[in-house]
Amino acid sequence: MDKIFYPENLLVVGISENPNNLARNITENIIKYGFRGELQLLGRQPGAFLGHPIYTSIRDLKEGIDVAIVITPAKTVPTLVNELGEFGVRHIVIESAGFSEFSEEGRLLEEEITEIAKKWDIKIVGPNCVGIISTGSGINTVFVKYEKEEVKTGNVSLISQSGGVVLTIADFLSASNLGITKAVSVGNKLNLKEAEYLQYFQHDETTEMIMMYLESIVDGRKLVENAEAGKKPVIVYKSNKSQASAEIAKSHTAALSNDDQLVTAALEQYGITRVYSFREMINAGKGFSLPPVKGNKLAVFSRSGGHGIVSVDVASELGFELPEFPDELIEIAKPFFRVNVIDRQNPLDLGTVFNFDSYPIIVEETIKIIHPDAILLIFNYRRETHPKAKEIALQLKEISQRYQTPIALCYFTEMDPILELEKEIDFPIYTEVNDAIKSLAYARNYYQTKLNRSLYQSGKHKIVISPMAKQNVQRIIDRKVTNELQIGDVMQICKEYGLPVADFKVVNSADEAINFAEEVTYPIVIKVAGGGSLHKTDVGGVKLNLQNRDEVTQAINEISSALVLHGITGQPKFLVQKMLTGGKELIIGGKQDTAFGATVLCGLGGIYAEVLKDVRIRLAPIFFEEAKEMVTSLKGYNYLCGVRGEKGTDIDILADSLTRVSQLMADFPCITELDLNPVLAFENNAAIVDARMILQ
Amino acid sequence: MDKIFYPENLLVVGISENPNNLARNITENIIKYGFRGELQLLGRQPGAFLGHPIYTSIRDLKEGIDVAIVITPAKTVPTLVNELGEFGVRHIVIESAGFSEFSEEGRLLEEEITEIAKKWDIKIVGPNCVGIISTGSGINTVFVKYEKEEVKTGNVSLISQSGGVVLTIADFLSASNLGITKAVSVGNKLNLKEAEYLQYFQHDETTEMIMMYLESIVDGRKLVENAEAGKKPVIVYKSNKSQASAEIAKSHTAALSNDDQLVTAALEQYGITRVYSFREMINAGKGFSLPPVKGNKLAVFSRSGGHGIVSVDVASELGFELPEFPDELIEIAKPFFRVNVIDRQNPLDLGTVFNFDSYPIIVEETIKIIHPDAILLIFNYRRETHPKAKEIALQLKEISQRYQTPIALCYFTEMDPILELEKEIDFPIYTEVNDAIKSLAYARNYYQTKLNRSLYQSGKHKIVISPMAKQNVQRIIDRKVTNELQIGDVMQICKEYGLPVADFKVVNSADEAINFAEEVTYPIVIKVAGGGSLHKTDVGGVKLNLQNRDEVTQAINEISSALVLHGITGQPKFLVQKMLTGGKELIIGGKQDTAFGATVLCGLGGIYAEVLKDVRIRLAPIFFEEAKEMVTSLKGYNYLCGVRGEKGTDIDILADSLTRVSQLMADFPCITELDLNPVLAFENNAAIVDARMILQ
Repeated sequence: MDKIFYPENLLVVGISENPNNLARNITENIIKYGFRGELQLLGRQPGAFLGHPIYTSIRDLKEGIDVAIVITPAKTVPTLVNELGEFGVRHIVIESAGFSEFSEEGRLLEEEITEIAKKWDIKIVGPNCVGIISTGSGINTVFVKYEKEEVKTGNVSLISQSGGVVLTIADFLSASNLGITKAVSVGNKLNLKEAEYLQYFQHDETTEMIMMYLESIVDGRKLVENAEAGKKPVIVYKSNKSQASAEIAKSHTAALSNDDQLVTAALEQYGITRVYSFREMINAGKGFSLPPVKGNKLAVFSRSGGHGIVSVDVASELGFELPEFPDELIEIAKPFFRVNVIDRQNPLDLGTVFNFDSYPIIVEETIKIIHPDAILLIFNYRRETHPKAKEIALQLKEISQRYQTPIALCYFTEMDPILELEKEIDFPIYTEVNDAIKSLAYARNYYQTKLNRSLYQSGKHKIVISPMAKQNVQRIIDRKVTNELQIGDVMQICKEYGLPVADFKVVNSADEAINFAEEVTYPIVIKVAGGGSLHKTDVGGVKLNLQNRDEVTQAINEISSALVLHGITGQPKFLVQKMLTGGKELIIGGKQDTAFGATVLCGLGGIYAEVLKDVRIRLAPIFFEEAKEMVTSLKGYNYLCGVRGEKGTDIDILADSLTRVSQLMADFPCITELDLNPVLAFENNAAIVDARMILQ
Repeated sequence: MDKIFYPENLLVVGISENPNNLARNITENIIKYGFRGELQLLGRQPGAFLGHPIYTSIRDLKEGIDVAIVITPAKTVPTLVNELGEFGVRHIVIESAGFSEFSEEGRLLEEEITEIAKKWDIKIVGPNCVGIISTGSGINTVFVKYEKEEVKTGNVSLISQSGGVVLTIADFLSASNLGITKAVSVGNKLNLKEAEYLQYFQHDETTEMIMMYLESIVDGRKLVENAEAGKKPVIVYKSNKSQASAEIAKSHTAALSNDDQLVTAALEQYGITRVYSFREMINAGKGFSLPPVKGNKLAVFSRSGGHGIVSVDVASELGFELPEFPDELIEIAKPFFRVNVIDRQNPLDLGTVFNFDSYPIIVEETIKIIHPDAILLIFNYRRETHPKAKEIALQLKEISQRYQTPIALCYFTEMDPILELEKEIDFPIYTEVNDAIKSLAYARNYYQTKLNRSLYQSGKHKIVISPMAKQNVQRIIDRKVTNELQIGDVMQICKEYGLPVADFKVVNSADEAINFAEEVTYPIVIKVAGGGSLHKTDVGGVKLNLQNRDEVTQAINEISSALVLHGITGQPKFLVQKMLTGGKELIIGGKQDTAFGATVLCGLGGIYAEVLKDVRIRLAPIFFEEAKEMVTSLKGYNYLCGVRGEKGTDIDILADSLTRVSQLMADFPCITELDLNPVLAFENNAAIVDARMILQ
């Protein structure tokens, strides 16, 4: 992909002498941005533009073209791509619109192009995009006039599904301390998709972090795995969350919508930062431009008490701790204070410190003495103090780098000078307390997740499933009659994977059921175990709390008659289970998602999951610790711990079960849906009471 | 209060010739900001500053001082205030710190000053503040050097509990289209509190909206009522939300913390906009600077498809509807489009419209044809288009005002020129789609709440409590033995207020209980009804599901014995109730809050309220419609409507009950706590099953 971002030989296709021609803007931008390689132009009419001749035939061009940038009507593109392929071009940026985002006809054109691209092994950026910006090689292929000064060179690489959004994020980046190294507008993602760009940027030396704007995620699994494999923070702004936006997005970049809850879960799980606005994106980026935030210990200094209070609210919301300052530090700070009594409170109120030169001293001593995970300095000042504020910012930047301690500077004064300052000194300056702390929190969450996941890898809680168990499950799956497995088979699969199932047996007669009941002791439950799509409760196929052999016999008879009534013939089978009571209900489930693959879910049972949507989702498989986090982060978690003097439940067993279910889902992609509902949780154990499984 | 903001005669107290003296900054600021009245200076040493003599004795001053600004050590302030009072000064701004925010000694000084102020009828701003800014009369009493150009004159009045925050909000306002007319830093709020300033600004002609930063709310009831009485939007940023911040706030402006959930609820109820950051505050203000947003119908135009999709996500989250555009409008727009096929989708994608002059035309036609409640135009452009973008903004400003239709302009280009543009044209320019729509939503919520509350006033659902019922309740309260009323009395009070209580009777013997049971039919419940602080269940004082006279007799005997065992003597009383089953559990409650007075609460029963905190709170009394909104906005509301084929419950009866409870709480402030738990809701009725009431 280096060829795309560092080409030596460029071709612009679609240029004309019409002043409104968009290829002219592309050409002009490429020249303005300082591209030093060979630049050739191709159009329908001969001529020249900015000293470059316009050729009308591919055969007239010099060979060795690294990248062709195409902006011609959609219907001309397939032929063009074929000719370019024949001529040896292997990278084409198609900026033209009018493809799958526009019409069925356009979609067919895309299919044609894909075939041709396959034939010549061509990598395509777009179509329906604004192409690329690569500040290192002086390239900007955007089809509107774009001054070089509008883009600030920096360390961020940008992947965007919308061309307009590339420009917007570039504007935000250029107004911050960050700047851009590379940007790509992926458009309809014909063969190069977000995950491939991501992988390239992960290895690109000029890239320090990656930002993505996406309207759809096609291969979510590859995306999160690529993100995790790399060493760079990835920030994702995923729009098209709502039902309302799905229709619009389809006609914009042919984007299909994803399950948004799953997107959030998957990104969180893999340490990818999800943001919900452009400003938040930049704010997260600023956090990553500081040294790593490795924990929650925050030291705050504020010249204004009010801002200090705001910082405490935000810090505690975001899980930071503000330990009191020790005497040793207070003694060092004291001489700078006008009043001789300093509160050791954190935030330290600098209201009576008028010697601003003391700020870097106090901050440096703080780092040396208490080793905070991050520092926040809130400084509000008026115009005459601005030069001093700049000096302090530079000193703190240096201290931050020297001690590898993140220092968030939150400055409050007239807006213009601060915004200027940030660009000037290449160090983040926050203009809102919330931003500053949130920015640190983004970074902390990233480093924390990265560390946790690497610890889990070597963790003691590894789930090992024997090859024998897997074979057994495969055998059960192979002999399926309908896509919905019979309950006995589902229970057996669960058992193979070490899941706690209520004692059960599949029987053919009342006698067998009675034998089982006397073995496990009454009461028992009987469920019809036949026919996949059969709704057990609809046909009266579930009998609870059977206390003796008479009740068992009657139950079997009733179910059998009901089946006949519903026109279901053949020898029925019954699942007999030990009847369990008193536990707390949970649901554990799994699904295959088209974008992300196997997933696992847990929630409290009954209306908690259904009405209150109190569920947690993760991509499967998960680590035991992640499973535990899923359970403990349920809003209703306290209920599992026991309220009003009730006994709690065994969270480890639940977490273990979740982990096993996730492994099952990952091992057998043919299981499209698994629903263990309810799972009863008790003080020292748990039991799956009912289960459904749908196969492909 | 006019005297404070439009004084003709000012005195600054505490000036000296020391260049670090803060009173010098105050004086300099007042002169710089163009104050035209009489300005006198008082200090301990004679001298002069900027042409004004420094007097050393109050007697040497000219009389008729409207406002004295004091910045002398705390301990000198009481004597000074007394002397100034004697001299006829009736308004004093005390900027000095070192009072209740600092020490017990300081708190005593405050008490002394309060007494003196009462004696002379002096209104005090502060202490521990930066005083006032009044752009209309050229006053800025902030004690740091402050250039006139740093403050933009505008229509916002600002009340802030923190001096530092005054400056910050002023900076944000000055960087926006809004600007400031008046600002006051209220400090420790000795006798002038937020509600009084609010009332003044409501009547101040130059004020169009009011912003408040508060760390504590002392008289919340007065605050919300004053806000509602006025015709101007009020925006509140209330910090000090967390336990962690409470300690810090106390030492900052002696602020005590409020119940934050109640603050949110009260502000929402009375149509006050609550924000959580400075930027959000300005963003809300921008929304109020547009013509009123009166509904949810939003028309969106976007030059970039990506931004359009973002807008749909945000709009649907915030409850806006984006109706398709009608043919009539599309026909008018079509000639401006490069392609001849336009989707009627809303957002309308202006991607192929290159004649930007068409924007105002399309917008105006949209207003004429579909009468949207608001319009959002998203325009991303590059540098060369900026002059045109400005022209369009001015045209749209004019159209917005002419048609009284709010138009949110969301511009994306380089940051600096947009920020400049907004100030220049005095019209909001948003730089983030979220901001633009959220800004409209703030305004919509305000106008909607205002309208709703005025409709409710004349509503048909008014609760009328007879004077007789009130007298009966008063009688029950008057004969209280302990602060916790006996359950029979609580049930009786509920009945007087028309609340649905399960049939009950207070009896002395098993025979009486049996008589009652045979009247209402078995099963019944018996509860011990004596002794306020008695925990019924602890002493085995509750017997459920009694089916016949034997069980009743046994229950009465058991409870009686249990009471003796627990050392409770005397003739016990029993509450006998019809046993109800099968309903859905709710809790309804009320509390007196020190800041806001009577409140009412509802939530689902059991762990919903307890574990999931799914409760809604309002200030009492409420209107029926508000009660209904409380119930329907519970997260678990769907449960009340019936899930999995269950029957729903009568929401109107629940709302009526809530309304009556709120009236009871408002009528009897001596009821500090009322807890109806559970209230059982059925398909066509409801019943209070258990109740607790604590009196003052």
